[in-house]
Amino acid sequence: MLATCLQWDPEQRCHCVVVRTMPSSVNSSNQVCENGVELLPAINDAHGGVIVDMKDAMDPRDFLTLLRASISQWREEGKKGVWIKLPIELVNLVETAVKEGFRYHHAEPHYLMLVYWIPEINDTLPANASHRVGVGAIVLNDKKEMLVVQEKSGRFQGTGVWKIPTGVVDEGEDIFVAVIREVKEETGIDAEFLEILAFRQAHKAFFEKSDLFFVCMLRPLTFDIQKQELEIEAAKWIPLEEFAAQPVTQKHELFKYILELCSAKLDREYAGFSPLPITSVFNNKSSYLYLNRQDMQCLCSSDQS
Amino acid sequence: MLATCLQWDPEQRCHCVVVRTMPSSVNSSNQVCENGVELLPAINDAHGGVIVDMKDAMDPRDFLTLLRASISQWREEGKKGVWIKLPIELVNLVETAVKEGFRYHHAEPHYLMLVYWIPEINDTLPANASHRVGVGAIVLNDKKEMLVVQEKSGRFQGTGVWKIPTGVVDEGEDIFVAVIREVKEETGIDAEFLEILAFRQAHKAFFEKSDLFFVCMLRPLTFDIQKQELEIEAAKWIPLEEFAAQPVTQKHELFKYILELCSAKLDREYAGFSPLPITSVFNNKSSYLYLNRQDMQCLCSSDQS
Repeated sequence: MLATCLQWDPEQRCHCVVVRTMPSSVNSSNQVCENGVELLPAINDAHGGVIVDMKDAMDPRDFLTLLRASISQWREEGKKGVWIKLPIELVNLVETAVKEGFRYHHAEPHYLMLVYWIPEINDTLPANASHRVGVGAIVLNDKKEMLVVQEKSGRFQGTGVWKIPTGVVDEGEDIFVAVIREVKEETGIDAEFLEILAFRQAHKAFFEKSDLFFVCMLRPLTFDIQKQELEIEAAKWIPLEEFAAQPVTQKHELFKYILELCSAKLDREYAGFSPLPITSVFNNKSSYLYLNRQDMQCLCSSDQS
Repeated sequence: MLATCLQWDPEQRCHCVVVRTMPSSVNSSNQVCENGVELLPAINDAHGGVIVDMKDAMDPRDFLTLLRASISQWREEGKKGVWIKLPIELVNLVETAVKEGFRYHHAEPHYLMLVYWIPEINDTLPANASHRVGVGAIVLNDKKEMLVVQEKSGRFQGTGVWKIPTGVVDEGEDIFVAVIREVKEETGIDAEFLEILAFRQAHKAFFEKSDLFFVCMLRPLTFDIQKQELEIEAAKWIPLEEFAAQPVTQKHELFKYILELCSAKLDREYAGFSPLPITSVFNNKSSYLYLNRQDMQCLCSSDQS
């Protein structure tokens, strides 16, 4: 526990003495506050709250005792939000936390995050992730043919509709990486990312969550299709006129705009957003800013230093 | 339960007979399969799985009996994913589900979603929401002054740094609505949405989740600032040169690009993405497609029908 604490940001260090109890104890690294009462192991967060990352198995009654003592102590200290992360192995402690007034914040396959707001004033705890992010790939070869697939499941299953390869952006994955990966996975085609041509925001797409779907343009680097067997029924290069002639293309606005963006890109000037790597001065972390580089380049080359 | 079933999409109707047991029973509306065994109330999903939306309080032992009988039945039927939604009031059933092999899928303040994958082949259950979405507002008045704030908490607290108003997009909220709301909340200024100038994708921004931050341009409709007391330390209109002169603007790439986008928009052509309402033919749902309408308009007015 101590070692873990020391790895963290200095701003977020433990505010209580970390003590190791007997190695045979199931609760091997609790904290004690100044008056000697045993508390749950917690670190301060940057917003006046505390975070408890439970690691060790514990009897729910022992947990209840520690929880009550800890909340009482944190209340005295003027703490605000209390976060408790329970790995799924500690599912036996969930009911105890909820009965003490905790609510769910979010869950991932292997843990549940519970929160409790101490002050009388309104809860300002940040909300959970709210969006899923998807990508669709417009891949055009030199013959003005588009890479399309028929899926084995989903909305268009069995309809004979040809659609662009699509997929979900993985947690921690960049949009331009995700779309290259999806094209490769579904069709075996290697491609280079060019631009985001448009994106759609839709709501209540998945339970209560919203959906951001990025329509990307890619240049193919290989041309021989090797379709994925599990999810893809068929894949081919289709002349744009044939894609346009599908009844669904004119009826469904998203298909219609995909075609129009495609034509705009082929026939004239259409500037989408492309990624520019940037670094944060605060934590040195890299990320990407997507912008209209065509217009920005023009600016940069003339009057910007 | 029956009434609820009938409201749903015909594709997703109950696959078992819905029966009402004695009103005194805590388990008031279970289903029985053809051989008369009582099952959990479930509806089919569109991917070969079932969804159980638990409503009524139940003893964990009764729940275990129903759960085992149901999974056995669903396995026979060749079902794949099993989803159980437990409201927080039914927290006493969580441990039972986990011990039967369920894992967490996601949680919201008032419920926990658990999943179980029946087949031997790989789990293809869709992932949880992976991104939080934020907005930043570039609001410029006719004197080329920018609306800026100093926040009471967060990274720039107490630093004297002037930044653009920012905030988090609520669940189910459109980006262009969120940014107008944030400007109004923080500064009292009414504004009209013009364009998304750029966006940034960053990872591990909030627990393990990623972050999409949209830099938007707005035109102010009012000019008298009424700052929000709770979160905002100060708010004002700042000459662009003064924003540029802040050391953080040159040091922090995101600030630098915000200034450059601002200048590009003022001094020359820079086309961002703006929203176009679209409707799905499948469910008649409305959403917005964000694209470079400046370039598309040009296309539409000349050779498109």
